[in-house]
Amino acid sequence: MSGRVTDEVEIDVTRSPSSHHHVENLPYVHKVGVPPKQSLLKEFTSTLKETFFHDEPLRPFKDQPKSRKLVLGLQALFPILEWGRDYNLSKFRGDLIAGLTIASLAIPQDIGYAKLANLDPQYALYSSFVPPLVYAFMGSSRDIAIGPVAVVSLLLGTLLQKEIDPSNKVEYQRLAFTATFFAGITQATLGVLRLGFLIDFLSHAAIVGFMAGAAITIGLQQLKGFLGIKTFTKKTDIVSVMRSVWTTVHHGGKKNRKLFWVAAIAPLISVIVATFFVFITHANKHGVAIVSHIKKGVNPASADQIFFTGGYLLKGFRIGVVAGMIALTESIAIGRTFAAVKDYQLDGNKEMVALGTMNVIGSMTSCYVATGSFSRSAVNFMAGCNTAVSNIVMSCVLLLTLLVITPLFKYTPNAVISSIIISAVIGLIDIQAMILIWKIDKLDFIACMGAFFGVVFVSVEIGLLIAVGISFAKILLQVTRPRTALLGNLPRTSVYRNINQYPDATKVAGILIVRVDSAIYFSNSNYVKERILRWLTDEEEQVKANKQTRIQYLVVEMSPITDIDTSGIHALEELYRTLQKREIQLVLANPGQAVIDKLYASGFANLIGEDKIFLTVADVVLTYAPRTEEP
Amino acid sequence: MSGRVTDEVEIDVTRSPSSHHHVENLPYVHKVGVPPKQSLLKEFTSTLKETFFHDEPLRPFKDQPKSRKLVLGLQALFPILEWGRDYNLSKFRGDLIAGLTIASLAIPQDIGYAKLANLDPQYALYSSFVPPLVYAFMGSSRDIAIGPVAVVSLLLGTLLQKEIDPSNKVEYQRLAFTATFFAGITQATLGVLRLGFLIDFLSHAAIVGFMAGAAITIGLQQLKGFLGIKTFTKKTDIVSVMRSVWTTVHHGGKKNRKLFWVAAIAPLISVIVATFFVFITHANKHGVAIVSHIKKGVNPASADQIFFTGGYLLKGFRIGVVAGMIALTESIAIGRTFAAVKDYQLDGNKEMVALGTMNVIGSMTSCYVATGSFSRSAVNFMAGCNTAVSNIVMSCVLLLTLLVITPLFKYTPNAVISSIIISAVIGLIDIQAMILIWKIDKLDFIACMGAFFGVVFVSVEIGLLIAVGISFAKILLQVTRPRTALLGNLPRTSVYRNINQYPDATKVAGILIVRVDSAIYFSNSNYVKERILRWLTDEEEQVKANKQTRIQYLVVEMSPITDIDTSGIHALEELYRTLQKREIQLVLANPGQAVIDKLYASGFANLIGEDKIFLTVADVVLTYAPRTEEP
Repeated sequence: MSGRVTDEVEIDVTRSPSSHHHVENLPYVHKVGVPPKQSLLKEFTSTLKETFFHDEPLRPFKDQPKSRKLVLGLQALFPILEWGRDYNLSKFRGDLIAGLTIASLAIPQDIGYAKLANLDPQYALYSSFVPPLVYAFMGSSRDIAIGPVAVVSLLLGTLLQKEIDPSNKVEYQRLAFTATFFAGITQATLGVLRLGFLIDFLSHAAIVGFMAGAAITIGLQQLKGFLGIKTFTKKTDIVSVMRSVWTTVHHGGKKNRKLFWVAAIAPLISVIVATFFVFITHANKHGVAIVSHIKKGVNPASADQIFFTGGYLLKGFRIGVVAGMIALTESIAIGRTFAAVKDYQLDGNKEMVALGTMNVIGSMTSCYVATGSFSRSAVNFMAGCNTAVSNIVMSCVLLLTLLVITPLFKYTPNAVISSIIISAVIGLIDIQAMILIWKIDKLDFIACMGAFFGVVFVSVEIGLLIAVGISFAKILLQVTRPRTALLGNLPRTSVYRNINQYPDATKVAGILIVRVDSAIYFSNSNYVKERILRWLTDEEEQVKANKQTRIQYLVVEMSPITDIDTSGIHALEELYRTLQKREIQLVLANPGQAVIDKLYASGFANLIGEDKIFLTVADVVLTYAPRTEEP
Repeated sequence: MSGRVTDEVEIDVTRSPSSHHHVENLPYVHKVGVPPKQSLLKEFTSTLKETFFHDEPLRPFKDQPKSRKLVLGLQALFPILEWGRDYNLSKFRGDLIAGLTIASLAIPQDIGYAKLANLDPQYALYSSFVPPLVYAFMGSSRDIAIGPVAVVSLLLGTLLQKEIDPSNKVEYQRLAFTATFFAGITQATLGVLRLGFLIDFLSHAAIVGFMAGAAITIGLQQLKGFLGIKTFTKKTDIVSVMRSVWTTVHHGGKKNRKLFWVAAIAPLISVIVATFFVFITHANKHGVAIVSHIKKGVNPASADQIFFTGGYLLKGFRIGVVAGMIALTESIAIGRTFAAVKDYQLDGNKEMVALGTMNVIGSMTSCYVATGSFSRSAVNFMAGCNTAVSNIVMSCVLLLTLLVITPLFKYTPNAVISSIIISAVIGLIDIQAMILIWKIDKLDFIACMGAFFGVVFVSVEIGLLIAVGISFAKILLQVTRPRTALLGNLPRTSVYRNINQYPDATKVAGILIVRVDSAIYFSNSNYVKERILRWLTDEEEQVKANKQTRIQYLVVEMSPITDIDTSGIHALEELYRTLQKREIQLVLANPGQAVIDKLYASGFANLIGEDKIFLTVADVVLTYAPRTEEP
């Protein structure tokens, strides 16, 4: 051993276990810390704070004069007031280019997405005008591009047409606005009540599966529309050539960042070229399905169309909650990804308020649910956006489009729109992520596949239900069947580790050391008790077979037991009683702060004896292990 | 220090962090164990086994000849075949006395419970005849007394009368049998599918609150009936005297175990005396409400009355599932309590199959949901029961009652029945347990009170819903907001502990050590990442203010992190990226078996560098802590 040797004294107890009060007599010996008792109110507020305000939203407000607090408050609600002050021309150049690019992608995408939601095309264009404007003032992400998205449009379309037939346009639109209104209310409420963590319950794996499934469903739907023209016309060649050209540049763009704009504006170019060809060849009269009329003009008001009474109120509310949650999940996931790449902090709760407000305002201006779009945000990022100003630029382009050129889209062939949507949703199928999920966690993979096949083979809602269900089941499994392990001593150290993980760890004769890897709650207390007794029974059989020292001490290493409740204390009591009958001592090692509190509060510490609670497993072994030579 | 000094070498690394491969060169140094890779199938079966077969039901069947396996199988299904072989006369004496005692308690209780379920009295008597017989053959508890219970009767009555008016006797009874049938099916299915752990999700605290609330509700209902006679007759004195006498002996019995039988048979004596007085004084004609006619004779068959088709099938099913689960929870809780007292093992899944079979058979023989009764089981235990034979004795007494003496109960005053039920349900209000719950866990107490007030002020179902809801919320809170702690070194040891719990623990200059107290899953991965970064920010501010060494290493103590999923790995990656930008090294200490597997599978171990993963925090500090003197 080179140089320094560390003489570490874990604890020095050389007397027999029966000698009490040994702890006080010795220097440098540590008892298990019993933290000072917190008042009930303090305990309660600290739990509350960690649950809802763990990001300390009021931290910058501390010790500030009143006027400054007002400014900070406004900045918190409208982040544009903060970053707007440092805004300059060089930033605007990036935002302008990014904004123009995403606008060129947005227009053809929107026309297709509206169809997924069974709405007229202009409603999706409206939704790419007002909500991005609102978001630019209130949102905290610098990279998200706001607008209608494929999955939410599909979900909304599916849920709405169950209630009202889409051919009943007026009523259908009214229900769509109602759902959008409540989607916004749901999102904003979650943000205001700081319940943002609820969306964390949709696991990453489930979302990957759900998105992929939705992408396939949308893709197949579009493919039908895309292939539908084949039998009617000879013009297919134009379209399919367009598509293959476009796919090529799309892939090219993916590989070469400098060429990304080729992919980004390709959809619009395809649309323009195809529309032009249809227009001059009158292909629509030969069977090429076209978009047909899109209403010209800016968003009409729609606040009066929302159902605030009647049976549709509840239906709109239910659909809105579901669509709002999904939209939120997608947007937050995208926002977090880009925030991590550029290393800035995204405030989830603030983000929800922004998205919610934007959808509430949207529902009153003829928009349906908008959210952060995956494909557009990626293009936005690649085009070099710097702030949410790119969303404002996109809005302006959309405004011009609505005012001037929408009638021109009349002759756009549906097939082009379909191929644009297909290529947008293909990006949602993340095979890489699926492979990684398979590698890391098989149960996650089951959740992922469950959501995927649920969407593909049953319906969007069932897929969603499966995703949420399996995610919850996983949490429940975790809290119902915590892991336990037998510990052994690593040779020539005072470290005790899982003997499965460290094959050279050796058991201590006469002492069985068990570690429980979870808080002991009502959901697992019986299991933990029975599992510990099973370890003991197994070990006793083995000891008997090998004629080794009888087990006299059962040590529960409590480091990972972060909390215990009434049922847990009961289980420990039952364990203690059972062990007493078998003449085995129960010893606890290293109970944590919350646990030691409750062991004392319940009287369990006194029941087993305070001298049976040790700081480390090493201490227990030093105290109780049978010695060959006495001092 | 007296005698032995333990020279413990935690790890000997004296070189700079940049020297790689140091681990291989030194003796007695441990790397973090990477357990041998399990095959997928093996991993899957072991998870499955821990989840559903953790009690190893097939263990005794191992290495046995076929005929022996058959015998064991039969014994597993009918435990009476096992314990029946050692049955002897001295055991029977205990069982006989216990059986007679519980029968004397059962008869008057049943008459009252039937009223709670809006059924005629004989149905409760039927339910104390057939189900206990079935249970005696199949059940594994030695102390439970089977029969209708107050809470389930109330719940069933509440749920049934929502569907059918009780005055429509025939239909109402048919639905009751249907619900009973499905309650049995639910119970047996849970047992067969080994899903018994599902009832663990009703936390102890919630049950305490629910039971107390139900007891109060029933008590108030009965009190109304009990006081109702006051205004009509002068005979109150008899009844109230009866009651006071009875209450006195009841309390006497509680204090003195030898006198318990006074309390146990007091109800029957009250009934007999009161009935006799009413009969000879014709008090019923002066306004004393009486039980009136009870149908004589043994259980008629009712299999043909169960709704197997039509709209009531689904309603019966839903009510049955709820009532079955509650009945199960009560019975298993009672069974476990007595099993712990007498130190025998209760097989939860087997017990469910027994209770389920008993209710299915019951539903075909005019019984409604029966389960383990709290008051009767306590009396059974006190009376010295040894086996389930006491249930058989009770059954026989009930049979005789049904055949011979039921008409005699005609003149029993309702007031006596009411007082008997009140005293039975008072035992369900466990103030002691409530106080303990308050002491141990405030959130548990909220669940308890939520269930209590829900039942008392709203309804049985709402109370139940609140109980389940808060129980789940608690689990979710646990997995969403895990505890984290800063660790410090306990003076003159190599032990690192929470600096909040151990105020004398000291931080290491330049190294921030954080412990995360939970598995990192999708539900908490973002929180964990943000919380760790907040610890870091707080510490950096403090360091800057005190002009101490800049923090260069962030150590995550992973001992309590029992598992990690895809989202967790993502969060670690994001943490790593953020730290890189701040020029801080991420170091991991003591990742467990499941975690180290996934760190490697995901490539994260290679990303941060394998030399950044240590066995203990002490090792990290030895390697990276700035030293004053160099060797």
